[in-house]
Amino acid sequence: MMRRDPHNPVITPADVIPSREGLEVIGAFNAGAAKIGEETLLLLRVAERPTNDDPDYVAFPHASEDGDGVQVLRIRRDSPDVDVSDPRAVVYRGQLHLTSISHLRLARSTDGVHFRVDPQPTLVPSGMYEEYGIEDPRITYLDGRYLIVYTSVSRRGVTVSLIRTPDFRTFERMGVIFPPENKDVAIFPARVGGRYAALHRPSARGLGSPDIWLAYSEDLRHWGDHRHLLGVRKGMWDGVRIGAGSVPFMTEKGWLAIYHGADETRYCLGGALMDAEAPHVVLARSQDPILVPEAPYETNGFFHNAVFTCGTVVEPDGTLRIFYGAADQSIALAVTSVDEVLDSLEPVPVRAR
Amino acid sequence: MMRRDPHNPVITPADVIPSREGLEVIGAFNAGAAKIGEETLLLLRVAERPTNDDPDYVAFPHASEDGDGVQVLRIRRDSPDVDVSDPRAVVYRGQLHLTSISHLRLARSTDGVHFRVDPQPTLVPSGMYEEYGIEDPRITYLDGRYLIVYTSVSRRGVTVSLIRTPDFRTFERMGVIFPPENKDVAIFPARVGGRYAALHRPSARGLGSPDIWLAYSEDLRHWGDHRHLLGVRKGMWDGVRIGAGSVPFMTEKGWLAIYHGADETRYCLGGALMDAEAPHVVLARSQDPILVPEAPYETNGFFHNAVFTCGTVVEPDGTLRIFYGAADQSIALAVTSVDEVLDSLEPVPVRAR
Repeated sequence: MMRRDPHNPVITPADVIPSREGLEVIGAFNAGAAKIGEETLLLLRVAERPTNDDPDYVAFPHASEDGDGVQVLRIRRDSPDVDVSDPRAVVYRGQLHLTSISHLRLARSTDGVHFRVDPQPTLVPSGMYEEYGIEDPRITYLDGRYLIVYTSVSRRGVTVSLIRTPDFRTFERMGVIFPPENKDVAIFPARVGGRYAALHRPSARGLGSPDIWLAYSEDLRHWGDHRHLLGVRKGMWDGVRIGAGSVPFMTEKGWLAIYHGADETRYCLGGALMDAEAPHVVLARSQDPILVPEAPYETNGFFHNAVFTCGTVVEPDGTLRIFYGAADQSIALAVTSVDEVLDSLEPVPVRAR
Repeated sequence: MMRRDPHNPVITPADVIPSREGLEVIGAFNAGAAKIGEETLLLLRVAERPTNDDPDYVAFPHASEDGDGVQVLRIRRDSPDVDVSDPRAVVYRGQLHLTSISHLRLARSTDGVHFRVDPQPTLVPSGMYEEYGIEDPRITYLDGRYLIVYTSVSRRGVTVSLIRTPDFRTFERMGVIFPPENKDVAIFPARVGGRYAALHRPSARGLGSPDIWLAYSEDLRHWGDHRHLLGVRKGMWDGVRIGAGSVPFMTEKGWLAIYHGADETRYCLGGALMDAEAPHVVLARSQDPILVPEAPYETNGFFHNAVFTCGTVVEPDGTLRIFYGAADQSIALAVTSVDEVLDSLEPVPVRAR
């Protein structure tokens, strides 16, 4: 039922110009999506790392707190200030630095398949909550504006922040809306029972699993009335970790969310149907995934065996276009229909609601 | 400067009648405090466990989702359904149960030292977020009502919930206000710059430390604009874990919070001063703790070497009465003055703000 686009992957790191000299793009993935008139916009997560041609030096990126973009530090590898014992990170003078860092960048298409990536970053990390980058945006059109929620990463933790824009040219930063540790937030595109609603995915040190929760808000900045929505299902395709997903959309049966689930070996996509008036009530859910990493650009890449969506486009005829990060490296497109996804879901027993 | 009351501990488990037959009280500690006229109220965390006189059986508590209080299950120890390999928990039919469970109960005093504990629980666990109990309440008097924030513990995680009461007789449940993992929430007793404010303590699986954050709210139910407030300080008395503390109170120099800090060996108390108009700005902080576990009821108990406050009372003359959990077992009282605590704080450099 899921048709991969023959042009896949539709965007790769080679399509993206680095944000500055001395950096190379290693990922263009996990994009939020919006359709404005006939134009499809993707807001890509672009991951960059320093190019390094001198083995005597270690190079690592960090984001300026002033929002000046990604800076590169180069330190002699034998310096007593540097610790490179963990390949994912560099510790410099006792402070952790990641080996790559992400910003957000627009790509535009008139046919929904062929994209032109902007030559410059659209949003760069800024401030004390984003020194390790900004990641995985979701875009919600609501009340005449676009809401961009994204992951802000710093030594202080993994938080979720909100930016509002009328036109993707001017942006208003609204601050951290979910404290650590949280990610995979998607705001519903309409008020529900008078309130805004969002899916979110807290991660706890102790009790609990990486499950999907739902929260409500009166004003988009302040969130509460948190409800546990979807749990991981041990032994199934979504047995270890789950999270939204693209922005939920209304169907004739209720709110439909495309979410990701991971087991020990791979990240897949599935669907969850929520009550139209009370989206904290789950009505149905994918017993089996609707998209499994199988294509070479999904099974091989920066992170093998992963499909992960932050953005879908629903066409007026019910066609569902799922843009997804493939292997944490590229953007791919799969097409199905809303009805096919709805028909594939298994009802959730009332007692478990 | 800190004077322990000669009657310490002022409340012990022996002062508390179990909530039902078959349970014994093992802790009466970590109490929220309020002074209403001449009466001092403490809302105790009361921890109970099943009495068990038959070594062939394992007994464990769980809270009814219907709010009917703590129930006890007794299962033959040799049952294949039971796993007792972890002494802190019982796994029954694959589901975790803790070996003790807490509810909240009022204690009353006219002199602030001699307390009479209510014979019945005041608040019992209720609903899907409280099956493992409710813990560590803080009480804030605001807009003519008392706000009780407390930790709700369940298989879904450690969350923070809010209950509102005008009189400690009728209670209105306001739901989960902070998603997992969070605890040690204290709501400020006045609006700041038009908004409500609260200290909270998220705990992350990945990046970040168990630090104190500050959040704002327009309505007490929905919280946002999260700010990192106070970090742990490696190698110091608060080097491993920190958290509020009692409810912050206004002084002539700004908001003063008494918070707890732990290193590898003990839990101590210290103070933090925040800007009166912008409490997310820290002005000064305890270099050394203001209270260290030294008395026998602090160094020995259910959890050794711990002092932990959820409630303080500021008298009109500036006397500061700190009620604190001692060794996770009893309530003790230490008395000082607001001025002495303020004078003991070290200014925080402006650059670090």
